[in-house]
Amino acid sequence: MQLSPKLAALVEALRCLPGIGPKSAQRIAFHLLERDRDGGAQLGNCLSQAMQSIGHCESCRTFSETPICDICESVKRQDSGLLCVVESPTDVLAIEQTGQYTGLYFVLMGHLSPLDGIGPQEIGLDVLQTKLQQGNINEVILATNPTVEGEATAHYIAELCNNLGVKASRIAHGMPVGGELDLVDGMTLMHAFSGRKAL
Amino acid sequence: MQLSPKLAALVEALRCLPGIGPKSAQRIAFHLLERDRDGGAQLGNCLSQAMQSIGHCESCRTFSETPICDICESVKRQDSGLLCVVESPTDVLAIEQTGQYTGLYFVLMGHLSPLDGIGPQEIGLDVLQTKLQQGNINEVILATNPTVEGEATAHYIAELCNNLGVKASRIAHGMPVGGELDLVDGMTLMHAFSGRKAL
Repeated sequence: MQLSPKLAALVEALRCLPGIGPKSAQRIAFHLLERDRDGGAQLGNCLSQAMQSIGHCESCRTFSETPICDICESVKRQDSGLLCVVESPTDVLAIEQTGQYTGLYFVLMGHLSPLDGIGPQEIGLDVLQTKLQQGNINEVILATNPTVEGEATAHYIAELCNNLGVKASRIAHGMPVGGELDLVDGMTLMHAFSGRKAL
Repeated sequence: MQLSPKLAALVEALRCLPGIGPKSAQRIAFHLLERDRDGGAQLGNCLSQAMQSIGHCESCRTFSETPICDICESVKRQDSGLLCVVESPTDVLAIEQTGQYTGLYFVLMGHLSPLDGIGPQEIGLDVLQTKLQQGNINEVILATNPTVEGEATAHYIAELCNNLGVKASRIAHGMPVGGELDLVDGMTLMHAFSGRKAL
């Protein structure tokens, strides 16, 4: 038995979801048809609308439906003089959830990876440079991931900042709060020791 | 930071997928926006179309875009005089993949479960009865799942068939091919012994 054409198309389309193979796609398609048609139709609408109308903020490159996102438009944040550089919009969410940071963001949408053809241009460092040259930013906080690529990207941007006379800082590496010393990797422990503070 | 309205709507809508919680929904939404907008838009289209236009075959109750599905329309299958009763459209797929069965199907879309308010009417046994009364079916093969509810449903339908003078049979229970005797449960082993065949 062949699946009916629209059902087959749905199963095939579901495979664009991360981690969904042919069997899961089929299971999801049948689940929606059998038990949640309204939810499925709603999801179809939301997907079509989101893919069509969500673009990038012209100022910080995060996802936004408007040319400039809410955070970039906030005068209070503009006045802070702080700019936090992160790799992806989910990082912005994570930082915002702490409720402690009140500055602006710049979202690279990736990290430097010359082997994959991702250079400074691809992660928007030209946009960042223009932004820094406008002179409203006093400090750039580099919050890229603590991976090899993230570190390299942070160092590259730090150099850029130094050339433009803007202060650059890197978020601290060390023990995660609530972590256990014997379960943490050596690299993190090393960072925790070298970054120790007087009490 | 609030997610932008359409992004928030998409994350919420994604939670209708089975096994997807708030964190996974967010991860999927960002994945689609960052890396696979075409796939996402395509999925949106397919979902909308499928939810709208996939209904049930009037003859066998499986999913179908046409009033009568391909299998029910096949003259060869109608001539076989065989009707296989299964619980869900995925069971039809599984049986069709063996390529050995050439009869018709009847899909219950569930099983008898009086406590959940699912009686004979809800699983379409009135439709099945009308079908059997037309006299084209010589044998009903009961291929409901070997669970308590599946067995109960099979016995109920077997009685229905007997009353109508149609032969009813149940698929065999026993060792799965390639299985190991010491890993199989006692109930299955018991069935395998009681269903033994002369060699």
